[in-house]
Amino acid sequence: MTDRPSLASLSTPFARRHIGPSAAEVSTMLDVVGQPSVSALLSAAIPASIRLEEGLDLPAAVSEAEATAALRALAARNRPMTQMIGLGYSDTITPPVIRRNVLESPAWYTAYTPYQPEISQGRLEALLNFQTVVSDLTGLPVAGASLLDEATAAAEAMTLARRAAKKIRSNVFVVDPDVHPQTLAVLRTRAEPLGISLVVSSSLPESEFFGVLVQYPGSSGMLRDPSSLISEAHSRGALVAVAADLLGLCLLRSPGSLGADIAVGSAQRFGVPLGFGGPHAGYMSVSSGLARSLPGRLVGVSRDAAGAPAYRLALQTREQHIRREKATSNICTAQVLLAVMAGAYAVWHGPEGLKQIALRTHRMAAVLAAGLGAAAQTETFFDTVRVSVPGRASEVVATAASAGVNLLQVDDDTVGVSCDETTTVEHLRVVWTAVGLDVTALDVPALDVATADAIPASLVRSDAFLGHPVFSEHRSETAMLRYLRRLSDRDYALDRGMIPLGSCTMKLNATTEMEPVSWPEFANIHPFAPESQTAGYTAMIADLSRWLAEVTGYDEVSLQPNAGSQGEFAGLLAIRAYHRDRGEAHRDVCLIPSSAHGTNAASAVMAGLRVAVVACDADGNVDLADLRAQIDAHRDDLAALMVTYPSTHGVYEQTITEVCALVHDAGGQVYVDGANLNALLGFAKPGKFGADVSHLNLHKTFCIPHGGGGPGIGPVAVRSHLAPYLPNHPLRADAGPATGPGPVSAAPWGSAGILPVPWIYLRLMGAEGLAAATGAAVLAANYVAARLRDSFPVLYAGQGGLVAHECILDLRPLTKSTGVTVDDVAKRLIDYGFHAPTMSFPVAGTLMVEPTESEDLAELDRFCDAMIAIRAEIESVAAGTWPADDNPLVNAPHTAAMVTGEWDHPYDRALGAFPSGRSADKYWPPVRRIDGAFGDRNLVCSCPAPEAFASI
Amino acid sequence: MTDRPSLASLSTPFARRHIGPSAAEVSTMLDVVGQPSVSALLSAAIPASIRLEEGLDLPAAVSEAEATAALRALAARNRPMTQMIGLGYSDTITPPVIRRNVLESPAWYTAYTPYQPEISQGRLEALLNFQTVVSDLTGLPVAGASLLDEATAAAEAMTLARRAAKKIRSNVFVVDPDVHPQTLAVLRTRAEPLGISLVVSSSLPESEFFGVLVQYPGSSGMLRDPSSLISEAHSRGALVAVAADLLGLCLLRSPGSLGADIAVGSAQRFGVPLGFGGPHAGYMSVSSGLARSLPGRLVGVSRDAAGAPAYRLALQTREQHIRREKATSNICTAQVLLAVMAGAYAVWHGPEGLKQIALRTHRMAAVLAAGLGAAAQTETFFDTVRVSVPGRASEVVATAASAGVNLLQVDDDTVGVSCDETTTVEHLRVVWTAVGLDVTALDVPALDVATADAIPASLVRSDAFLGHPVFSEHRSETAMLRYLRRLSDRDYALDRGMIPLGSCTMKLNATTEMEPVSWPEFANIHPFAPESQTAGYTAMIADLSRWLAEVTGYDEVSLQPNAGSQGEFAGLLAIRAYHRDRGEAHRDVCLIPSSAHGTNAASAVMAGLRVAVVACDADGNVDLADLRAQIDAHRDDLAALMVTYPSTHGVYEQTITEVCALVHDAGGQVYVDGANLNALLGFAKPGKFGADVSHLNLHKTFCIPHGGGGPGIGPVAVRSHLAPYLPNHPLRADAGPATGPGPVSAAPWGSAGILPVPWIYLRLMGAEGLAAATGAAVLAANYVAARLRDSFPVLYAGQGGLVAHECILDLRPLTKSTGVTVDDVAKRLIDYGFHAPTMSFPVAGTLMVEPTESEDLAELDRFCDAMIAIRAEIESVAAGTWPADDNPLVNAPHTAAMVTGEWDHPYDRALGAFPSGRSADKYWPPVRRIDGAFGDRNLVCSCPAPEAFASI
Repeated sequence: MTDRPSLASLSTPFARRHIGPSAAEVSTMLDVVGQPSVSALLSAAIPASIRLEEGLDLPAAVSEAEATAALRALAARNRPMTQMIGLGYSDTITPPVIRRNVLESPAWYTAYTPYQPEISQGRLEALLNFQTVVSDLTGLPVAGASLLDEATAAAEAMTLARRAAKKIRSNVFVVDPDVHPQTLAVLRTRAEPLGISLVVSSSLPESEFFGVLVQYPGSSGMLRDPSSLISEAHSRGALVAVAADLLGLCLLRSPGSLGADIAVGSAQRFGVPLGFGGPHAGYMSVSSGLARSLPGRLVGVSRDAAGAPAYRLALQTREQHIRREKATSNICTAQVLLAVMAGAYAVWHGPEGLKQIALRTHRMAAVLAAGLGAAAQTETFFDTVRVSVPGRASEVVATAASAGVNLLQVDDDTVGVSCDETTTVEHLRVVWTAVGLDVTALDVPALDVATADAIPASLVRSDAFLGHPVFSEHRSETAMLRYLRRLSDRDYALDRGMIPLGSCTMKLNATTEMEPVSWPEFANIHPFAPESQTAGYTAMIADLSRWLAEVTGYDEVSLQPNAGSQGEFAGLLAIRAYHRDRGEAHRDVCLIPSSAHGTNAASAVMAGLRVAVVACDADGNVDLADLRAQIDAHRDDLAALMVTYPSTHGVYEQTITEVCALVHDAGGQVYVDGANLNALLGFAKPGKFGADVSHLNLHKTFCIPHGGGGPGIGPVAVRSHLAPYLPNHPLRADAGPATGPGPVSAAPWGSAGILPVPWIYLRLMGAEGLAAATGAAVLAANYVAARLRDSFPVLYAGQGGLVAHECILDLRPLTKSTGVTVDDVAKRLIDYGFHAPTMSFPVAGTLMVEPTESEDLAELDRFCDAMIAIRAEIESVAAGTWPADDNPLVNAPHTAAMVTGEWDHPYDRALGAFPSGRSADKYWPPVRRIDGAFGDRNLVCSCPAPEAFASI
Repeated sequence: MTDRPSLASLSTPFARRHIGPSAAEVSTMLDVVGQPSVSALLSAAIPASIRLEEGLDLPAAVSEAEATAALRALAARNRPMTQMIGLGYSDTITPPVIRRNVLESPAWYTAYTPYQPEISQGRLEALLNFQTVVSDLTGLPVAGASLLDEATAAAEAMTLARRAAKKIRSNVFVVDPDVHPQTLAVLRTRAEPLGISLVVSSSLPESEFFGVLVQYPGSSGMLRDPSSLISEAHSRGALVAVAADLLGLCLLRSPGSLGADIAVGSAQRFGVPLGFGGPHAGYMSVSSGLARSLPGRLVGVSRDAAGAPAYRLALQTREQHIRREKATSNICTAQVLLAVMAGAYAVWHGPEGLKQIALRTHRMAAVLAAGLGAAAQTETFFDTVRVSVPGRASEVVATAASAGVNLLQVDDDTVGVSCDETTTVEHLRVVWTAVGLDVTALDVPALDVATADAIPASLVRSDAFLGHPVFSEHRSETAMLRYLRRLSDRDYALDRGMIPLGSCTMKLNATTEMEPVSWPEFANIHPFAPESQTAGYTAMIADLSRWLAEVTGYDEVSLQPNAGSQGEFAGLLAIRAYHRDRGEAHRDVCLIPSSAHGTNAASAVMAGLRVAVVACDADGNVDLADLRAQIDAHRDDLAALMVTYPSTHGVYEQTITEVCALVHDAGGQVYVDGANLNALLGFAKPGKFGADVSHLNLHKTFCIPHGGGGPGIGPVAVRSHLAPYLPNHPLRADAGPATGPGPVSAAPWGSAGILPVPWIYLRLMGAEGLAAATGAAVLAANYVAARLRDSFPVLYAGQGGLVAHECILDLRPLTKSTGVTVDDVAKRLIDYGFHAPTMSFPVAGTLMVEPTESEDLAELDRFCDAMIAIRAEIESVAAGTWPADDNPLVNAPHTAAMVTGEWDHPYDRALGAFPSGRSADKYWPPVRRIDGAFGDRNLVCSCPAPEAFASI
């Protein structure tokens, strides 16, 4: 009987579903790599000096059903309410067709950032819709493809104004006292390191200033005409940014028409769930003169090799990954999935529908105010009314809450009430009753008839918007469903095949992890709801913070940063504050290796640090001699070293402990960028091998989907001496230490709405699962390196010739001898049914491959076979079989139109389209290779006229 | 101020989202049709004699958010529990990747029945997986693509045995006393009209019998070896069917290996939610000699025009729509969506995973029994144990329920406990404690070690199953996700474009209607849960019954029939019982017009009626003279007339009231088939214009998705005199009248789990919305008829030359003159990006088009333009521009492989692939035209070896 398996053994751990290769496949892969076991491989690859002795102390792994049940129990401790708090966050109705077919569709949420535009035309069109919405509603010609939230967008507007107002020497930025409190707080956090002085004033100061931020309508609800203030600011050489409510703009004169240079805000109320503060799409639009200074991503129209219009990211040279410390911003993630939703919401409702929603919202507020009578303090408003309830504010808020409605307690005597598209007359009755009015006999329809609008005539919008056909053609659900499917079908995401992007860790985003994001108990919570209503979130955040601290070896974690770049900024701020508190404010130099992510340098500059670059040696490692020299040169002002581990070259550098010691000895702090944590989890902890602070990328190692280019979450983890300097939040005392530098994101816990993803992932995997995943990821990278080494040199390797979780394939010699470029190989991979690896990062002319643990051997082999076949194609070019300017590589990718049309190429149509010999289940790119430069010269960043596409 | 819209007016009704054409588009369409308004159109089309004076009495339409909130309130009245009741329904874990990417994916659930195999290869492969699962596990070579539930599958097995055991004259069918009670009840309902006598006995009778049904394991849990009974039955010329538990068969010898001729059962516990009884996939497999008698759909492998293997429905000539009253069964719907899920569950777990789940389930039951000691009555079992608790059964059940676990109360002294894949040791503790044992100190792991399996050695399975690679290749979620996407991408469903299927009403299945199907409060309810736990379902069913009665003009509705065919059967049973109760049992003739659906005749035969066919006149209407003659001929034995209204020719026959009167005058009852109710809703009620009974198709008019060929729901609605004869159920007294004929489905309310769809649809539309939908549907059909009339004659029309909600395009003259067939046109439409209309029904050589109300004008025009272009292509064949055997029509559909390969056709590749001139967003069929006859000659109905596909 003893050979009968026990009951407890009769289950399959989730790790088996998350990790691609089976035990048999692992064995095959080990043979190719030449290692006896995964643990031997990792022992050989990871320096002994940093390897953990013991496993991680995490709760034992549970099944998917158990993890879901546990999370449901947490969710039940949140209390979804009717949210009339306002402050930039509103209840909204996510159209179910958009929820199911965007937010809950792997075709959208597993996509990568659209750097390969030929396989991203669907989401690029969706983002162009978003840009058109923002541009039309704000009345400014150039809108980006989303920022992280309204508060950071306001901070970006501030720094944009600082860059653009070149003639102004003053560092004063004037802020409307009626901005949202979290916006002001983020501005303070961001201004201080840059030496910008904030002047909070509703009138312009006598002295010089470079920019102004106005909230429109005000956070209090008050609607003021900013046009004279704008003209005065302009006459004094300053720029003006308007933080505007997109729904309000459907009825209100646009910031552009009022003279603003910049508009910022949030698209949350366009169908994006509250999610306790995020993720939502922030927006920015600018006047045409500022287009090339716009931070973040910008989608534009260009043309493909056949001259057909095609979308791609425009003006990429502005971005941080190119300009490093000269970048316009450290922003490198957008909120694509949420911007897609907001744009789709506008497509779904169209201009008439949006106007109707805005008008209904306004009428609710107007009727509310009329019913309140003298208690209503706000005279002109769009959706928000302040109510005078002397001495009774907390009682009124409590009474409304007991009827299911959250109001804003402004102070002891005042409450705020914000209406939105979900507001009903019943909600108005709750408010009236809570305020103390007897409304049982009130005739609301009569009050409606008797009540005028509360928008001043001078601010009533008269110009049309969203005239493009896309905003009128999809009014039935059938039409909308098909439009969303057509868009997603144009794209290649993880649901079609591997995305071997070095440094981006495109692993499985399991359904069990994603499902809770839609639960009302997580989706419908306002970020400033009372703590008593958010106990589930608080408990989840506490769990997750504890677990992340454990796996990284740090003492404290802040989940507030809503992108990796924000995490970097927060971490560097902590270092800066630490030095200041110790009386060493002069320490302001940040050493960064030449191989670093571009964001590193940009974040350092934002944090008020000066950047010094450390060289790499021929093996791609930090050049210790140069490091020593730099430390010597900056011994007195050294603030930090910022290094990625394993390195951006995909190597476990042997010297990491020595590097850390050198920096510490010189009084500096060590920042380890956690981008490559997928190669460490369960085997080494940055907080234990010498680092003081790291940010993590929950959208890399911890399974938050990339969403086509966002959302991301970039928590910052620190050792205890830096803990007092973690971000905090003015509206939630428990969001961070009172001694912190202020918030780096608008919401207390940033993009809290997607934290269920890493929470469930960690519960499902447990310590053993995480270590197994790391092992499988490292094995997969070494397997690919081993299989491809003969075809393409693997650029860097660590001890034993092993790479970490990714490998760099060097194409430079081939490019030199044949003219075939990394671009050609990347585009040819599309014909083979793959997303390209990372191109020319960290080394120009190379491809960096990160297979992750989630790809099984069949898919790894399919990729390796394709790369080997491509190498043979390159040989045919080299041999002159095909001309250098007409071969399957330079002509890639091949569209269906191309291979069925005129054909005079020196190879078969079928070889063009089906190089692997298999025509079934083919992914067809909708356009040929795109000419990015053409689009940059001829910038078009909102929906082009449909006629432009007539030739497709 | 009076011109300001009121608050109440500022919302968009859901009907605007459901109905495709905008007001402006409606106006354009009316111009083409030549009618001043929709109401004028309907007044002109619908006979005045049947038109309603007043609107429907339904609750006012509400918004999507309101309807969802209202349904959530109902759902909250259901109580999901741990379900250990058994009786053929088990808790199961739907793998989240399958829930999200099949059950919740429009690409799967909006697909039609795979009658057009070239655009259905994905679900055909998924169904072949299902058939392979059933065939392998039951050990019988031919399995169908699902039946409606286990009980009706058992009834089909009975009638199949009756047909097959040709030499046996006795009408006796022997039934195991240990079958599930609902199975026995359905057998009784089905046996009686056919004159079959059921003998319930565990041993074979002395006298002759044609068949035997054995439950394996028994409903009580008891596991008996049926092999000697089977051989004895065989030796006496009878056939044996085994109702087997699929999960149990992973450990147990297969019915085939035990000698059974037929196996039936349910695939519910393979990942399909309980849903208060359905929908689930029933299954049947048979020995090879019975393949051509198998009821329902059968998927098989054939080859396409290029010789590549391809799937399609096999042996379609068996089906009711071809054989009518000679059909093998009235089954015409399968449970495709659920069969796809069950097959995918097996792909996900593979043979080892299934064995592990089965073993764990068995071990739980074994440990449970060991813990119970002497109280355990069952000695050999798989998952279910009967427990002796003298006098305390109801108390034990109540105690377990209070701890969240439902048990089965067998009688006053006995409870039944069934284990499943969700069972935990905690659940066992609940049971032990409820029974009265003190298990606080029980060492369960030790008990586990000490307890032997409870499967007799003679019944232990030794043969392997699911050896096909598809059951081993998709073990990671990444691999599974991609497999499901690849399959769905091969298919064309409503999420890509119009499916203009006459008689099938492929309208919008809105997301708001579909989302509640996944809610645990609907998904996780056992059909035999106590009434106190199902109050939400009861209330929803009461609402829906009342509303359906109102819209049809009947007095009572039964929601039990889980397909239209079952509704027909139930309705005809009611008529039969009515005559019997009045002492007119001799009335047994059912008149059916020649244009009727094939099911009508098959259902009549099943209900013990004789069919007499009534001719149609040249206009396609019921030939009144012939009707009168038939009534005269059958005046004494006339039971019923069964007629579809509007007719299957898509015409509002003027004579319907006269027809009804003639039948009533002769003592007959009028059955109006509700298939075409989409042309009546809000304008006429069958129950008011002369009919006595109708069945409705909730998957046509009321938005339940077709799911690729099921689920369907076919409620039967009757006037009060027939109400006593509606279906009832032995396990739920409130499911029907005590005077009823018994159940027609296994579950009290059939496929209750998808009733949220019509419930929400009716709440969203209200009376005005429903009438508007009818108007839009009739307008769309007349618009298509008007636009296409010059290209293809419209075969039948009613008054004013108007059709109802569909129109028949006559291709016969063109076929005669050019050789181009309806098949050619149907397949060519694929190249244009459409699903074909209904082919050769109700008239051979024609296409029947039903656009429905959900298609907007752009899509209607795209279809009409395609049909007109096809007409021009036919002209080119006629003119000799293209040879009759080599043109875009006969070569259609064109695959990507074809148009990129060798090409010697007399037209361009691009014309083949992109006849509309547009290459973007092309749907590519994965195979060329399929040779159905080849596959029927070479029957392969389970997964073929992968090598077969090597050439694709």
